[in-house]
Amino acid sequence: MQNEKINFLKTYLSLYIDHTTVLEDLNQPDSKYVLLDVRNAPATIKKDQIKGAIAMPAKDLSAHLTELDKSKTYVVYDWTAGTTLGKEALLTLLSAGFEACELSCALEGWKGMRLPVETI
Amino acid sequence: MQNEKINFLKTYLSLYIDHTTVLEDLNQPDSKYVLLDVRNAPATIKKDQIKGAIAMPAKDLSAHLTELDKSKTYVVYDWTAGTTLGKEALLTLLSAGFEACELSCALEGWKGMRLPVETI
Amino acid sequence: MQNEKINFLKTYLSLYIDHTTVLEDLNQPDSKYVLLDVRNAPATIKKDQIKGAIAMPAKDLSAHLTELDKSKTYVVYDWTAGTTLGKEALLTLLSAGFEACELSCALEGWKGMRLPVETI
Repeated sequence: MQNEKINFLKTYLSLYIDHTTVLEDLNQPDSKYVLLDVRNAPATIKKDQIKGAIAMPAKDLSAHLTELDKSKTYVVYDWTAGTTLGKEALLTLLSAGFEACELSCALEGWKGMRLPVETI
Repeated sequence: MQNEKINFLKTYLSLYIDHTTVLEDLNQPDSKYVLLDVRNAPATIKKDQIKGAIAMPAKDLSAHLTELDKSKTYVVYDWTAGTTLGKEALLTLLSAGFEACELSCALEGWKGMRLPVETI
Repeated sequence: MQNEKINFLKTYLSLYIDHTTVLEDLNQPDSKYVLLDVRNAPATIKKDQIKGAIAMPAKDLSAHLTELDKSKTYVVYDWTAGTTLGKEALLTLLSAGFEACELSCALEGWKGMRLPVETI
């Protein structure tokens, strides 16, 4: 049972990336990560997003895969960690052969740490 | 590793149903889904519930399985997405041969979207 | 697919322990569980912790494994259920051969139930 737990945790954790790693990379000239804001809400509801993120609602993602870059790693996020939208987007990206992970703690955690956002 | 991630995400997401799908179904004359409110709190603490839900505390679920209908799909929910009570109820239902899933974002998400609730 | 869901849920739930079980055990003279507060924040940010917990930031855990007791079961917790820090600590502990699980609903849930905390 311990091995099953360990394998489960390894796979689970491999789906996530923490905000520190993302933020440090985004400050580099040739950053590897691209943030995708997969919230389905309109801009009037979203109001702001993580600085430098691309708005890519999960419901539209499949139709926009050809615009994405296979040399990048996409970091998806939704409002909070409690939703399943980020994992839906992640499944779409991984199934299409992209490198992708979910931002640990989502937008809520990013804002809670007072990390950079921008008005949209 | 990508295949493991994809399989993990597929199984994870198969456990959930989103509020839109549930709400549309509940508005049909012959709805397929039945909401089970599995919170263990007494009614005085719960105060309200999703409109049309059946109060079925997770701690009592095993004793009430014979009252459930195998032609329905049960949608369980707890207070928030962060608890494990919904998944405990889900395991009980699936192990007993019922179709069941967990409401994505739980009661908190339902109320956040201002979807219909009722006083209890 | 039902078997995959059931196995997934069993493994997922085996990672967690609920606050009632922990609290009852901690009230025994020879308790089995030891709470590890794995938050990485300094004490000035944390302010309080679960009563009797040991402060063991996840970032320092690997360096302190030799101080832990293989006859105990370690219960890790972070601020909320939405973070991945608890699961990172859990993976470290299980991989090193310790018995360990994560506190369901984390510190947030413990405080929400008004269970005992202590100033640090």
